[in-house]
Amino acid sequence: MKELGKLFDRIIQRVNINLRELEFDAHPLINKLVPKDQMTKFYAFYGITPHHPLNLVFKHANLSGSYFLGKVRVTNSLLYKSDIRGDELKKNGDLFQYQDFNIPVDRDEEIDIEDCFLIKTLVHNYSHDPETLETFFIQNSVSTHYANIHGSPTDGSFLGPFSTVDLTTVQDCVIGAFSYVQAGEVSHLNVEPGTVWVRKQDDFNFMYRYPLGDLNNYIYFAAGSPPQGVFMDFVEDRKEAFQRVFSVVNIDSPVNIPSSTSLDRFAVIKPKTKIGENVLVAQRAFLQNSTLGKGANAQENCYIINSHLQGNNVTAHGAKIIEADMGTNVFVGFNSFLRGRPDARLSIGKDSIVMPHTIIDVRRSLSVPAGHLVWGLVRNQEELTANSMSLSEFAKIKSRFCKGSMLFEGSGNSFVTAFQERIHHILEANGAFYDGKSKRGHAQRNQNISFNTIQPYPEGDKEGMYPTIIIQP
Amino acid sequence: MKELGKLFDRIIQRVNINLRELEFDAHPLINKLVPKDQMTKFYAFYGITPHHPLNLVFKHANLSGSYFLGKVRVTNSLLYKSDIRGDELKKNGDLFQYQDFNIPVDRDEEIDIEDCFLIKTLVHNYSHDPETLETFFIQNSVSTHYANIHGSPTDGSFLGPFSTVDLTTVQDCVIGAFSYVQAGEVSHLNVEPGTVWVRKQDDFNFMYRYPLGDLNNYIYFAAGSPPQGVFMDFVEDRKEAFQRVFSVVNIDSPVNIPSSTSLDRFAVIKPKTKIGENVLVAQRAFLQNSTLGKGANAQENCYIINSHLQGNNVTAHGAKIIEADMGTNVFVGFNSFLRGRPDARLSIGKDSIVMPHTIIDVRRSLSVPAGHLVWGLVRNQEELTANSMSLSEFAKIKSRFCKGSMLFEGSGNSFVTAFQERIHHILEANGAFYDGKSKRGHAQRNQNISFNTIQPYPEGDKEGMYPTIIIQP
Repeated sequence: MKELGKLFDRIIQRVNINLRELEFDAHPLINKLVPKDQMTKFYAFYGITPHHPLNLVFKHANLSGSYFLGKVRVTNSLLYKSDIRGDELKKNGDLFQYQDFNIPVDRDEEIDIEDCFLIKTLVHNYSHDPETLETFFIQNSVSTHYANIHGSPTDGSFLGPFSTVDLTTVQDCVIGAFSYVQAGEVSHLNVEPGTVWVRKQDDFNFMYRYPLGDLNNYIYFAAGSPPQGVFMDFVEDRKEAFQRVFSVVNIDSPVNIPSSTSLDRFAVIKPKTKIGENVLVAQRAFLQNSTLGKGANAQENCYIINSHLQGNNVTAHGAKIIEADMGTNVFVGFNSFLRGRPDARLSIGKDSIVMPHTIIDVRRSLSVPAGHLVWGLVRNQEELTANSMSLSEFAKIKSRFCKGSMLFEGSGNSFVTAFQERIHHILEANGAFYDGKSKRGHAQRNQNISFNTIQPYPEGDKEGMYPTIIIQP
Repeated sequence: MKELGKLFDRIIQRVNINLRELEFDAHPLINKLVPKDQMTKFYAFYGITPHHPLNLVFKHANLSGSYFLGKVRVTNSLLYKSDIRGDELKKNGDLFQYQDFNIPVDRDEEIDIEDCFLIKTLVHNYSHDPETLETFFIQNSVSTHYANIHGSPTDGSFLGPFSTVDLTTVQDCVIGAFSYVQAGEVSHLNVEPGTVWVRKQDDFNFMYRYPLGDLNNYIYFAAGSPPQGVFMDFVEDRKEAFQRVFSVVNIDSPVNIPSSTSLDRFAVIKPKTKIGENVLVAQRAFLQNSTLGKGANAQENCYIINSHLQGNNVTAHGAKIIEADMGTNVFVGFNSFLRGRPDARLSIGKDSIVMPHTIIDVRRSLSVPAGHLVWGLVRNQEELTANSMSLSEFAKIKSRFCKGSMLFEGSGNSFVTAFQERIHHILEANGAFYDGKSKRGHAQRNQNISFNTIQPYPEGDKEGMYPTIIIQP
């Protein structure tokens, strides 16, 4: 395992050099986060479909338990149980619109990961940076459990557990645990844990920060231990169910699904789950005793348990929905944790938007009215009142607005419109609007994927390192 | 599946062009031999170990159910459930001895398969042709069920079911069902079914031919049907047991084995099997209620059932041993079929050599004495007397000798010595003589292989075709 150790040291050093101004040392945080023998234990896998440009290049890397789809290059990196999903990358000939520019895309876009250690991280979408259209780079960076790197070229950064960078170019930043950053471009920032920040330059700025004491109950991360708290306990408790789906080569679909729906064979489907048309269920999703109505979806690391989703529900990467009833078109953002109780259900009215990184955790039944925006920490009616607002009211904000720990500046209308357009686009991309002929999306295109498995050298100096692997059309 | 069909046509055409002088048409023979949907059904797999140079290149091919180890290139070919085992290829820096020449090997040898359709074929060993030391080529050829291409560069040829070409460069030949050819170099020959031919230029020539009527009972192959007969029924009856070992990702060893022994995880081991030290059990071997003594082996497509192997037994690729007791150092050649009955066991005395492609199929117990050479069809004592001879007697042959349907010319001593040296070399290569420190072989080196699986495009024009795959150190 000599080479694996050297590679680990090299990556830490590169991250630390990039973060030296912030006086950040990644080493104590991640030194023992993934035992080396875990890194040689699980196979990696990649998908083959005729629907996405295929080009996989793996060099000098450990990829244990990770999944790859589309055009992806990984060099000098450690990827542990991460998902690198290149099914939304730009294609040669696309036009990328940015402000007044219409920039032609020269070649199929590639996710290029170099000198990184990504732990249980999701990488998806495409580079939104007009300066780097064909390369969605992630380099000199470390990301930890259940981080999302979504459309965000990232360099020299550290992403805490359950953090998300979204549509943002990130350079030399520390993103704290459970922080969400969608800000176009950020550099040399140390984003505190539990920050939810959505900014559009010259248009609006949304900022919420979790009370740290309360956040620590859900997610706490400090040197010397793995991430702790409710979020980690929740996923660890359900880990075993995934072992079965990863241990067999072929698996029968555990439920009947319509022909317009895609159920990944690496998802866990527990009994009494019903899945409607145009539904997308991604790998590592967990469904139990729930109903997913037409056009609903469950992305990577989503858990939907004892819940009812009426239709066209977006459940973004890492979101959890437990004991809840969700109206049509309800959007639940990244890594949100929505938990009712069997005798205290949570209901969310149609067209509502649950902001990314929202925690709704109730012991008495609670209803979020239709057409509302909800954010932050909501454990009861009082906190709901403080941390929500009707979308139509929100759209009326013209300049600056404070509510609870939330500060908003700029145009509420732009903010609401941007969100609604994006939700529409996500549904479209997922294939929620497929009519049997047109408007195909992931739900239709990802139905028939061939999975291939790869493993590292089993012994010797290279133990744990994967050979160079190149897969092309 | 458009491309798969085109590739099939292209290969047939190339084979037929090469075999035009023999007025041979491969098309009716193999047209429906493997249904196209079978060719998309099974994953292919390759092994990664630090002990063998690694370089796999797959381009424009279907590889369904096939296995690869070492340095192998496959282009424009269909490989169905074939084993391409490059663990005996020459390495850069080796010296290849041929007559008075000592030829340095310039680079690691590669198995290079182009424009071929190989069905359930084993490819092993290395090129023995001094003209092509670094490339063990197999091109413009078709081989059918359980053929062995062993150390034999092959061009423009058709190999019938259960045929073997061994240490021979084969050009524009048809090798009939169950024929064995070890002849240095052959071209433009149509070798009749059931021929066993061992020739060393200017030294000796061994020739036996099965009575066709009797052979047809064991293996019969004609246009329009798959191969038929006892051999096919025998393997088909045991097919199901392999499905389990191929359907799970990780499998526990079904028996305890010594640390000096290698038991491939794609072998089937049925109860009451005991495996001694320095034993090699290859993928697709089948062991049931048998004992393999120290230094014994079971290669690809071997079946050892209700039998006892005392030690240092070579059971070459495709050999079957049922209800038999084998003394130490007994060698059983390629595709031999040795079957006693529960109440009529077969025993073979120590140091005996069962020639490749021998059938011993008895209904009364039969003993082959120690130190004997046995060949051809043996169903009773009478046929044993006709088709065997003590090795010491055989070594006394000086020029020409006939016995039953066997004709021998040349030096019996050279023939026996060549065989004995080769057997010793095989045991050595397999690791039978490993002493805990030195004399490592396959049994020790192939213990810890990482297996990776690959699959073809699942739909569209390319359905069944594998993407380009390049695996390097």
